[in-house]
Parts: sequence; C-alpha cells; structure tokens
Amino acid sequence: MSEEASLSPVVLAVPGNEALAGAVLAGLPAELGAELGACTIREFPDGELYVRVDTPVAQRRVAIACTLDQPKDKILPLLFLAATCRDLGAAAVGLVAPYLAFMRQDERFRSGEGITSAYFAGLLSRAVDWLVTVDPHLHRWRSLDQIYTIPSRVASAAPAIAAWLRQRGQAPVLIGPDAESEQWVAAVAAELGAPHVILSKVRHGDREVAITAPDLALCQGRTPVLIDDIISTGQTMVAAIEHIARAGLPAPVCVGVHPVFADQAYDELRAAGAGEVVSCNTIAHASNQISIDAAVAAATAEFLR
Amino acid sequence: MSEEASLSPVVLAVPGNEALAGAVLAGLPAELGAELGACTIREFPDGELYVRVDTPVAQRRVAIACTLDQPKDKILPLLFLAATCRDLGAAAVGLVAPYLAFMRQDERFRSGEGITSAYFAGLLSRAVDWLVTVDPHLHRWRSLDQIYTIPSRVASAAPAIAAWLRQRGQAPVLIGPDAESEQWVAAVAAELGAPHVILSKVRHGDREVAITAPDLALCQGRTPVLIDDIISTGQTMVAAIEHIARAGLPAPVCVGVHPVFADQAYDELRAAGAGEVVSCNTIAHASNQISIDAAVAAATAEFLR
Repeated sequence: MSEEASLSPVVLAVPGNEALAGAVLAGLPAELGAELGACTIREFPDGELYVRVDTPVAQRRVAIACTLDQPKDKILPLLFLAATCRDLGAAAVGLVAPYLAFMRQDERFRSGEGITSAYFAGLLSRAVDWLVTVDPHLHRWRSLDQIYTIPSRVASAAPAIAAWLRQRGQAPVLIGPDAESEQWVAAVAAELGAPHVILSKVRHGDREVAITAPDLALCQGRTPVLIDDIISTGQTMVAAIEHIARAGLPAPVCVGVHPVFADQAYDELRAAGAGEVVSCNTIAHASNQISIDAAVAAATAEFLR
Repeated sequence: MSEEASLSPVVLAVPGNEALAGAVLAGLPAELGAELGACTIREFPDGELYVRVDTPVAQRRVAIACTLDQPKDKILPLLFLAATCRDLGAAAVGLVAPYLAFMRQDERFRSGEGITSAYFAGLLSRAVDWLVTVDPHLHRWRSLDQIYTIPSRVASAAPAIAAWLRQRGQAPVLIGPDAESEQWVAAVAAELGAPHVILSKVRHGDREVAITAPDLALCQGRTPVLIDDIISTGQTMVAAIEHIARAGLPAPVCVGVHPVFADQAYDELRAAGAGEVVSCNTIAHASNQISIDAAVAAATAEFLR
C-alpha cells in the first residue's frame, strides 16, 4: 500500500448502517480517495460485544456511519468502534449520524430531571472528534456548540424536501404542526417560495396532543403539506391531520425529516387520513422517498479533507 | 431537613436493581444514616430515555446500584442517572456493580480487535467516581487499576461460597474447569481447607469447549464441586461435568459467582448432569443461593464514610 493510499479516509458502518456508509462514500469527492472500510461487530450470547476493524486505520481519517434512532442498541457498538479506531492510531474519528438522539430534553422542566441532551452530547464529544448530522432538534439550544464540545456540521434537509415537492407539480401550502416545527417548515417554504402556517400544540403526555385552531384561509386551493422534523409517536401529526380535515381541506401530504415512527405510528398516521406519508432517509424506513445523502456527504467531506 | 440529614449518603437503583440497592442499604453501618433514594427512569416510545432523581442529592454521596449483565440495556440508564446526580450537585457518585461486564477481552488476540475491557473501563471511569464489584474477571489484567482510573473495591465471593459449602456438611473437592478459574477455586479451597484440581480447557468458538484430562484421583470419596466465576453459555461447565462423569465421579455441584446464563445455559447445565447448580446473587437468577450482599455493602461503605 502506498503512503498516499494509507492516508486516505476510511468510512466504516456500525452494523445496520451499511447503506448510509455506502451513500456517504459515493457522495464524497473522488479526489479524497476514500475507502469503504470493513469491521466486525457481533454480540456474544450473553449480550457483550466483539469489535474488530479489518481495514487499516492508523494515521487515517475515519468517518463512522451510525444514525442514532434506537440509541440503546447502537451506543455501545458505536462507542467501542470509535475507541478501537483511536486505539489503532486513527488520525481522527468522526460520526455521521443523520438522526441525532436525545435532543428533546433540553431543559430541567421539573426538579431533579436529567438534561439528557447535554449528557448524550458529552458522551459523544468524548468518543469522537467531529459530528455530522441532519436538522437536529434545536429548540432551547440554539446550536449544537452549546452542548457538543467537538466541531459539527449540520446538513439541512430543506433543499431535498423542496425539490421533492417541486417535482410533484402542485402548489403547496406548508403547515407546521407546532411552534417547534417552524424552523423546518419556514426553510422549505423559503426554498419553494410557498406560503406556510404554523399550528399550536398542547401536549398532555407522551402520546396525547391537542391542536388549537389557526386561520387556514390561505390554504384554500393549495395542497396542504405537513412538515415536522421528528415523527415519533406520530400523535402531533395525527392531531394536525384531524385539524386540517375539520377545516375542510384536502388530506395533507405528511413529510418527516426523521422517520422514528415508534410502535404503530406509521400505520396510525395513514389511518388518521394522511394523503401520503413520506420521509427523508435519515433513518431507514418504507416511507423514505427523499434522499439527504448528498447533503450528508458534502458535510462529511469537510472533515475528511 | 437538618444539615446532617442532607449530607447523609443516598443509594439509588437503576431500574431492575431495586433488590440490590435495598440489600446494600441494609448492609451499610447504621451510623452512616444512608437513605434509599427514589428516581424515575423510563423509556419513551421511541427508545429514548427520561431520567429524574426525586431524592435531593446535592452535596451528598451517591451509590448507584446497577449490576452489568446485559450491558446494552443498562448502560444509558446508568450513564444518564450518574450524569444527572453530578449535574444536581452530588458530592460523589459511585457505582455498585456486582457483575462487571466486558472484562474478558483483555488483549488484542487478532489484528484490529478492540480491547473492550479497557474501553468500557474508560467509559465508566468518566461516568462515576468510584466502583464496587465482586470478583471481576481479571486474567491478563492483574488489577482493575490497570484500566479503571477511578478507585475500586473488589468484594470476594469466596467466603460466602465457602460458608455455603461448609453448611452442606460434605467433604468437597473443588474443581476449576479451566486455568482462568484457578483464582476463584483456590480462594474457596483455602477458606475450606479442602483440596482443589484445575482442568484444562481448549476453546474452539463461543460455544465449543474441550477439556483435557487431569488426574482426578484425589477426588475419590469427596463431593466434586465445580466453581467458575462467570457462567455464560455454560459450555465450559458442561464439558467439565462430562469429564467428571467419564472419570466415574458423582454428579458435581456447580457453583457460579456470576450467573449470566446466556440463552438456555441453565437448563443445558442441568441436562448435562450437574448435581445441583447454585450461584451468587451478583445477577438475579433462580439459582441464587449464595448471598454476597454483606461483602458488597462492606466494600460500598468504604466510599460512603
């Protein structure tokens, strides 16, 4: 192996993230000479883990692909893979996690609560040297830099969502189900030059959500497109769909950046009257119709040059 | 609350470790005035976690009870609970983990392998201030201090195992199924003043184990007692049981310090001809007959004074 080849970047996948790793690799500039690396992570019968990196990583920049839905199953494989790369002498080890978990608890709402967004950020900041993600749920935190001590690049899904809506050829009105969604909805609306409205949500528990009525007059004659960043239980979307139906509007297209879809959320969304449910491929799901691979690869390339 | 009370230690349980926390508390010297604390850790429908510590912990010493079998399910609750206690101003946060996971990969046996014992030690050493465990699997590592940067106390199960064997009233011969088991077997033999022999194991995979024949002559007329630290797949024990049967000895009593019992290991052990299968309660299991609570509480007390 020439010295140049030995110093080219390596992309590794935590098991289950092979498609992501392949897409990142395919989207990197050819002049980087990046290589898809091989690694083995398997669970022993007792739930402990075996980790091996089969591609040489010494002195090379490493990008680990691991989207972080179902973080319980992924955190130890990710932490051990990153630690192994560092132990083997990698020049730098970064994480490509299109979905970044634990961003929603960003304040101590009640005495004694753990601010898990900050603790998870601390955990990852010690484990890797840089982070690429897609539209993290920044609400009270204004920037990942407030909780992550490592450099990060945030890829936006808005251009890809706008492009997908544009090719459908209908005049949309973009609707956000709650105030927190405005940042994603406004970004897509700006890309499209389309109007947007934001509903108001009152949450009564993990699964109970009520929507208060905004003026939906400007929606007349346009296709309603509901957009949110994370679709988890889907109850926020369901409440918004029902509200739109009560307003006499057509069934909305539902777009999620991060199709977490806990339990039966996807089926419930369709049963509630969604016209179509589509998502970005930050988490692999049958609803993935919008690829954010190019934006993720471009952000990753910044750390591999 | 008086100042004295507010500074008394608190014992918290990661869910599933309530019995351990209660046993630790019961075994602490009364003058410590330790309190069983309340905390809430629950999983959201999407697998993320909510953490709340309901007992005040500011300026207090905290012991978190969390044995570490099935570490995948426990690591994030543990890390987040410890981080929350620190965030809430606890004076120190320690971990009481009678079973310590990931001790077995203590060397890079093959190029590229991760030395998970060291990475897991680093993870816990950053998360808590001290550690109490029972008979960790120290093989190539001579001491936890080689990989843990925090102080630790190791409670020995040997006195409790010896006391349990003594009250059975039979003259035992203690048998270790492989060289790694000698440290536990010799410790129990020394407590009892009984002879011990060590078998030789050749491992062909996660589940395939062969035993080579030692001289079992000194076992004649004594009850064979097989002892190992971790019973995981149980295949090491099964091979030893079969070897003992071939030598014409009675069915052995099988004693495990850590009853991990992956998959059907417990049933397989009994089906293989074990006379009795008993374990220490480092991991809750139907076979628990030997309590290590007193030793664990005594070691924990050293960090709570």
